[in-house]
This record gives sequence, C-alpha cells and structure tokens, in this order.
Amino acid sequence: MRLTAFTDYGLRALMRIASDPSRGFSTAELADEFGLSRHHLAKIVQRLAQGGILSTRRGGGGGAMLAVPAGTLRLGAVVRLLEESGSGLVDCLTPGALACTVDGRCGLKSRLRRAEAAFMAELDRSTLADIALHPLEVEQ
Amino acid sequence: MRLTAFTDYGLRALMRIASDPSRGFSTAELADEFGLSRHHLAKIVQRLAQGGILSTRRGGGGGAMLAVPAGTLRLGAVVRLLEESGSGLVDCLTPGALACTVDGRCGLKSRLRRAEAAFMAELDRSTLADIALHPLEVEQ
Repeated sequence: MRLTAFTDYGLRALMRIASDPSRGFSTAELADEFGLSRHHLAKIVQRLAQGGILSTRRGGGGGAMLAVPAGTLRLGAVVRLLEESGSGLVDCLTPGALACTVDGRCGLKSRLRRAEAAFMAELDRSTLADIALHPLEVEQ
Repeated sequence: MRLTAFTDYGLRALMRIASDPSRGFSTAELADEFGLSRHHLAKIVQRLAQGGILSTRRGGGGGAMLAVPAGTLRLGAVVRLLEESGSGLVDCLTPGALACTVDGRCGLKSRLRRAEAAFMAELDRSTLADIALHPLEVEQ
C-alpha cells in the first residue's frame, strides 16, 4: 500500500516548514533538500496553498509558510488533500475507472472505502505540530 | 493511496474462487477473465497457496480452490499477505529503503504505521465469505 510521491514529499515539506513557523521556505530550498525538481515541489506547494494549508509570498524574505497554526492541521486532512489527484486503492476506485462488470454486486469496494476512512481517522488523531521537526534537530 | 496490482487482482481472483468452493479454477480461466498474463496470475495463486489460503491441484478437474472456508479468511490478513512484497506507504517505509536523515526524530513514520494497522483492522472485520460473488450473479 503506497501513498503518492506527491503526498510523501508534501508531508516532508510540511514537517520542515512547521519546524520554523517564523520564516518562509523557498521552493528552491525545499527542492534541494529533498532532491526533487523545483517544478514538482512548486506543484506541491501550490496544492497546499489552494487547500489553505500554506500561504506564499514572493520576493526576499518570502516563500511558503503555514497559513494556520500547525496544531490545527489534522494529518488525515492533509493526506486527503494531497492524495486528491492520486489513484484509488484499486483500479475500480480510481476516478474515471471503467465500469466494473460486478458493479452493484461487489462487496469489496465499500469495505475498502471504510478501511481507507479508518486510515484517515487514525491520522486525524495527530496534527502537523506532532510531527514538526524541532529547529534544533533540523540543524544537527 | 494505492494497493499493489498484485493485491487488486489477488482479491478479485479470491472473490471469484470463493463464488464456487466446489470446483478448481485454472490459472488460464482466471487470467482470461481479468485480462492478465497467465504468468502474473500464476504468481498470485502461488503466493496465496504459500500463505495457506489456496490449495492447488494439477490435471483435469484440478486448479486452485480455497484451502479453508471463506468465512474464516479475514480480509486484512489476505491483504497483508498479498502486499508483503509491495512498497511501504512512503519511501522510508519500503523494505531496503535508504537510511533517513531524520531517523529517530521522525514522528510521521510511527503514525503512518498506526494508520495502516487501522486500515487492516477495519478489513479484518469482514471475511472472504462477505465478498464472494454469488454463483448466480457470476453467470449473469
């Protein structure tokens, strides 16, 4: 079972950004740290900004910052936002999937949906503040 | 969030095999039905047999059958078995992953593991009997 790379790096970026809420993080800085293309990182930041998690400011001293306190950001909500354009758990749960030959008689789909909800609910028990990298630790 | 294709097709094969516990299903029959290569399907059947879920018999009237009653097979256990060789939820949870630069200080990994456990626990509330395709429905 795998989250999209988009979510994986989105979470890492947020852990880092949450480590120092007082300053902006440039796309270049985050991209370099994770060995990602700036283009990819920019798309992640854009999604998080559209979802109201990050705010971005151009220019010197600008960059991406948390739009709301880390303690108010539930991890399940963050993952749901980042996964939005990703694949479903199985082919038939992916948006735009072909009609299934056993649709309406399949007992699996609803159970996978409930399991996914349980996954997100468990993540929702924590907030971004719980996984922020402590500034001192970042500098090690 | 996505299960491996191995798991996706493994579940579909089991739903079909459980629809008629009285007969064996050949790899060719299942592969044709799902539009998969026989090689791929044979690997799935092999894994399920190794895990004690299917028994296989060669020759006429042979094929793959459930090794135990469908009502005793918890879906979480089935998915865990099928996912075994798959990727972890994120890069750093994948077997053989490179050492993480924040290992020991990362609060995300343990939370993802707990969420995955909640996912499997929810699936474990159902058995293969709950998702078996009814024989009559199979024939439609």
